[in-house]
Amino acid sequence: MSRQQNTDEFLEWLRGQIPLINYMGFKPLQFDGNSLTMSAELAPNVNDKGTGFGGSLATVATLCGWSLITLHLRSLGRDDDVVIRDSHLEYFLPVTEDFAAVATLPDAEALSAFNQRMDRKGRARMDLVIEIRQDDKVALRLSGSYVALEKKR
Amino acid sequence: MSRQQNTDEFLEWLRGQIPLINYMGFKPLQFDGNSLTMSAELAPNVNDKGTGFGGSLATVATLCGWSLITLHLRSLGRDDDVVIRDSHLEYFLPVTEDFAAVATLPDAEALSAFNQRMDRKGRARMDLVIEIRQDDKVALRLSGSYVALEKKR
Repeated sequence: MSRQQNTDEFLEWLRGQIPLINYMGFKPLQFDGNSLTMSAELAPNVNDKGTGFGGSLATVATLCGWSLITLHLRSLGRDDDVVIRDSHLEYFLPVTEDFAAVATLPDAEALSAFNQRMDRKGRARMDLVIEIRQDDKVALRLSGSYVALEKKR
Repeated sequence: MSRQQNTDEFLEWLRGQIPLINYMGFKPLQFDGNSLTMSAELAPNVNDKGTGFGGSLATVATLCGWSLITLHLRSLGRDDDVVIRDSHLEYFLPVTEDFAAVATLPDAEALSAFNQRMDRKGRARMDLVIEIRQDDKVALRLSGSYVALEKKR
């Protein structure tokens, strides 16, 4: 199966698991093995000012990071739980059009440490910065700590 | 009009402004003039583990603080824009049942400073801590900075 097929199947799986995202105008995910782009239409995600609702922006950014780690673990043949532990959200600019959150895996050294920790301890933390950009400016930045945990059998 | 009628009308208005919340199983708001409780059903807000989806929890908590400030300003006869500027979210425990976010206005002194600043400058910040509790424990804590701004005419 191609990576895009895998990614499309992942979004279908997500839609079945998390009912809310079916009402958020998600577009197909883009994943190159290192960065994940999660895009959504503005219309279902507006606030009272007609711009991006903070809850929607936070949701897409949070889920983008979560999905990147989940896809990474699956690429290693693993099936772990991933949870968000902590996040810091900075809202810089109103979002006035369809938007995309982008998350990128840490550098090779940090990623390798994460992978080894998962193998040895069955539990590891990954810190990610996820951004929603518009016109080359950061509209929202999420700095988040996620934890992956081996599933209890 | 009674306060509960006012609060019910406010939620109806919100539902018209922010389409996403119509898919989140919101229950009637409770507002006593000082604290706002925003409750939602678990079922439409689950994640892949059947517990509260982080995006939903973040959304309800963010909106609870935003709504409290908006209701407060309306009680003063004001109609301002309110935006979230910055938030820190700590996820302590999985949410396994219908949940409620609670936000409380700052003490009288801080509130009076906020009100005066709005009157004088047309712009003021309010910091709030919003919690989702379950079984007397904090499941999610949002520490957020909101900014109220006089609407441009």
